[in-house]
Amino acid sequence: MANICIATTATNNQVILRDYVSGFPKESDLYIAAATVDLRVPPGSMAVLVKNLYLSCDPHSRTRMGKPDPSSPTSMAHAFTIGKPISGFGVAKAIHSCHPNYKTGDLLWGRVGWEEYSVISPTPSSHFKIHHTDVPLSFYTGILGIPSLTAYVGFYEICSPKKGETVFVSAASGAVGQLVGQFAKMVGCYVVGSASSKEKTKFGYDDAFNYKEEQDLSAALKRCFPKGIDIYFENVGGKMLDAVLQNMRTHGRIAACGMISQYNLKEPEVLHNTATIVHKRIRVQGFAAVEFFDRYSKFLDFILPHVREGKITYVEDIAQGLENGPSALIGLFHGKNVGKQLVEVARE
Amino acid sequence: MANICIATTATNNQVILRDYVSGFPKESDLYIAAATVDLRVPPGSMAVLVKNLYLSCDPHSRTRMGKPDPSSPTSMAHAFTIGKPISGFGVAKAIHSCHPNYKTGDLLWGRVGWEEYSVISPTPSSHFKIHHTDVPLSFYTGILGIPSLTAYVGFYEICSPKKGETVFVSAASGAVGQLVGQFAKMVGCYVVGSASSKEKTKFGYDDAFNYKEEQDLSAALKRCFPKGIDIYFENVGGKMLDAVLQNMRTHGRIAACGMISQYNLKEPEVLHNTATIVHKRIRVQGFAAVEFFDRYSKFLDFILPHVREGKITYVEDIAQGLENGPSALIGLFHGKNVGKQLVEVARE
Repeated sequence: MANICIATTATNNQVILRDYVSGFPKESDLYIAAATVDLRVPPGSMAVLVKNLYLSCDPHSRTRMGKPDPSSPTSMAHAFTIGKPISGFGVAKAIHSCHPNYKTGDLLWGRVGWEEYSVISPTPSSHFKIHHTDVPLSFYTGILGIPSLTAYVGFYEICSPKKGETVFVSAASGAVGQLVGQFAKMVGCYVVGSASSKEKTKFGYDDAFNYKEEQDLSAALKRCFPKGIDIYFENVGGKMLDAVLQNMRTHGRIAACGMISQYNLKEPEVLHNTATIVHKRIRVQGFAAVEFFDRYSKFLDFILPHVREGKITYVEDIAQGLENGPSALIGLFHGKNVGKQLVEVARE
Repeated sequence: MANICIATTATNNQVILRDYVSGFPKESDLYIAAATVDLRVPPGSMAVLVKNLYLSCDPHSRTRMGKPDPSSPTSMAHAFTIGKPISGFGVAKAIHSCHPNYKTGDLLWGRVGWEEYSVISPTPSSHFKIHHTDVPLSFYTGILGIPSLTAYVGFYEICSPKKGETVFVSAASGAVGQLVGQFAKMVGCYVVGSASSKEKTKFGYDDAFNYKEEQDLSAALKRCFPKGIDIYFENVGGKMLDAVLQNMRTHGRIAACGMISQYNLKEPEVLHNTATIVHKRIRVQGFAAVEFFDRYSKFLDFILPHVREGKITYVEDIAQGLENGPSALIGLFHGKNVGKQLVEVARE
């Protein structure tokens, strides 16, 4: 079908960064403003105008809200811009396209703005066309998207799990954690999770604890893992990581994709137990799922049958409407969400 | 040649642990005492009586001098015993053997006591017969032994170096560090070392600094590595590791075989910059060369030609006589040695 270019515009509500954030972000650090969007993209531009359906709330966004550090090119490149919409991963539908691989009506997921409409320039490393629509589209922000790829790569590739090993997952009910827990059970591991409430620890783990109720995290871990931890899937950092290091077994593996507990601190929590890395010959590997996009197709082949057959479940926490996006995003840093937090901007 | 069992004894001077050590070890924590050794081993015992020639002084010994922690089976198994000789790696000559693979006159290296004679029960994973004697026998405590295997495995296998990458080596003139520096130059890396004196930084590095003269370790590293560090070969831990984390490049690798700066502290130095492991997707791998003994033969094939042709040099700091063993070992923790510290107990 040929693209038909109709010159018309629409209101485009956007979530704007008011000022750089230091410490815990507040809802007032963001505001909603109405812009106008041209509903056509320039011919020959490789651009696609998309209508955003679901936006993913990711802890990582906090690192982009702070004042960029001029000495760090990465920080400069990634920081959000004051007065502009923030961005992240989302599910969207093509409204108008001058890109040869996308046509009106195509569904995709990848980087978009926090707004009703975005103009994107998709590449194979930034956006993926959605071919399977028998599953909820929102799943492409979670169990079929980055968080699940994070769990998959981090657990299977980086942690090299073996049946019978012990696995600890922090942020156990979060977008990534709830999947690591299920993957670990599938391998035949003994899995313990920690979260910020009793409700959140009911995710099919062999054991769990509410870290807010523990005086001594190391003692809690020793209680759950009398023989120690083989694999730690690190989502929080700080004191929890320090306590885990005290309880790791020889040849333990730690996959670290995030340290949410540290993002809002002016001074990071200190670690005392790093010598354990030598004594116990531990491997600690930081990673980011976006660097494993070449595995995405193989990953989908693995996960889709499990999703369709209900063998893996996924809990979502869906905020309705872009106007509720700021509170949903900020809520992440207070542990308000149960399961994967996302925002439904529009239904298809 | 048949083993001839002659019933006779000899005086056996030994280096004895006086009491468990806390804080920095002192020479007075060790003392020399004369025991008597039977110069034959019991028939059918698989034992070998050896005369010790060279003893290796290793930072790791400090971890065995402390009071063992009853909650740690490893600590209980490894701790030295009060009133008994300490032990370590050494080069020795078989005096009498009831082991089928060893005969009188054979040279070997592996675990022995700090004493003139030891009775050992060699296994393929604890002792290696010495076949090449055209090189100094003392080299089997260093460039042909554990420190060199540590450098080889840690640098080539764990750090996966590529030509043009930047490499930082702490304890740059030590038993391990001086070899990592040379291996890195052979790969075509840019290599910087740190040590505790100007003299020690003259080991063929592209650049070097004396960490005792630097107010700000991170600033020193930034000066030497304006674009950051790809590979850190960790020998010291603590503040240096924290400063290195601040200066690592994306996808950096840290091989950690020791943290000598921490062994004598009652409370370890804290780390502030561990979040970098996630942000920069860094891999930190603790390891011990003894777990790579299956590589020893391949390693010898690699290193021996370089040693014979003088393409790799190795600086040794040799204390003469068992009676000077305690001061040589303690000196390690004050950075007194230049190069590999060892003790010559006897010439062949």
